[in-house]
Amino acid sequence: MKVYLAGPDVFLPDAIEIGRRKAGICRRHGLTPLYPLDSPIDLTARDASLRIFRANQAMMDSADAILANLTPFRGPGADPGTVYELGYMAGRAKPCFGYTNDASRYIERVRAWGGVCADDNGPTDADGLVVEDFDLADNLMMIHALELHGGPLVMPSHQPDDVWHDLAPFEACVRLAAEWLHTGTSALV
Amino acid sequence: MKVYLAGPDVFLPDAIEIGRRKAGICRRHGLTPLYPLDSPIDLTARDASLRIFRANQAMMDSADAILANLTPFRGPGADPGTVYELGYMAGRAKPCFGYTNDASRYIERVRAWGGVCADDNGPTDADGLVVEDFDLADNLMMIHALELHGGPLVMPSHQPDDVWHDLAPFEACVRLAAEWLHTGTSALV
Repeated sequence: MKVYLAGPDVFLPDAIEIGRRKAGICRRHGLTPLYPLDSPIDLTARDASLRIFRANQAMMDSADAILANLTPFRGPGADPGTVYELGYMAGRAKPCFGYTNDASRYIERVRAWGGVCADDNGPTDADGLVVEDFDLADNLMMIHALELHGGPLVMPSHQPDDVWHDLAPFEACVRLAAEWLHTGTSALV
Repeated sequence: MKVYLAGPDVFLPDAIEIGRRKAGICRRHGLTPLYPLDSPIDLTARDASLRIFRANQAMMDSADAILANLTPFRGPGADPGTVYELGYMAGRAKPCFGYTNDASRYIERVRAWGGVCADDNGPTDADGLVVEDFDLADNLMMIHALELHGGPLVMPSHQPDDVWHDLAPFEACVRLAAEWLHTGTSALV
């Protein structure tokens, strides 16, 4: 079974090495990893970004499932590029799994990011927009998509020292996906 | 033709009113709007967030296309909840349209958000993660998804005074979607 490894890991300075470590963990659990950087792209080409998109989409189309790193990225929420891919795979009715290396709730991160006020309509952010307050780790669309299209979000029991290189939640998520994919459990809605 | 109106507009203090305005614009262009807040949800229910998810997914499943507000939200990128929905509809092979009320490029917003350094591997953010530098308005997955699954991202010619209430780019996007949907143009990949 092939799993597409989505995540902002591709932006790390050691993106190739982290991909190798993730691939090794997948293989140890009987899964075949597909990592975006496995597709060689000429980054000097005029249409490099389109080539990356097409390669990622083709990889997702050939994968049996997605395993997404939803660790908060440049703000209180997950990386939108990764979340797009999670949505795409859910839309394709393929099993979706995800993890985060952040142990906090979404509203706590919005509080740290720019503050949260309480008014009659509930908590709002610094711009006056309502903050979801369902005691969830991120936006409800991703959280429930995982629950209903695969397995629940895997979270760390405590905040890792290095949120970009700790692979314990990733490995727990691989274990969950492997069990699901190898037993053919079907929870798709 | 029914279009699902995705966006962080649902978090505005006047979310219902902005939905009404958007719905009116859609109808004037011959489209039937589906707005998340059209589904009455009991927010005091224990499983309120799951009910919202299911209602949004059912609305997307019944829609012919999505029209997503990708205005940057709590950080330099688009709202992940909205982006999940964009991905879901692309995965369902339904036409995807989107707009932003921000006239800047992604890398400029990362610069304003926490700074950008240049090293041998290209621009990096304050955490040392690479910043995409393709002269695009946001992450390449969303930008090219729109181009290939519907129509290109609609951007304002200049920064609106109120990014949450200016509906000029929204109306331009509705026009694009209406033309596409009424003529049956097919650009799906």
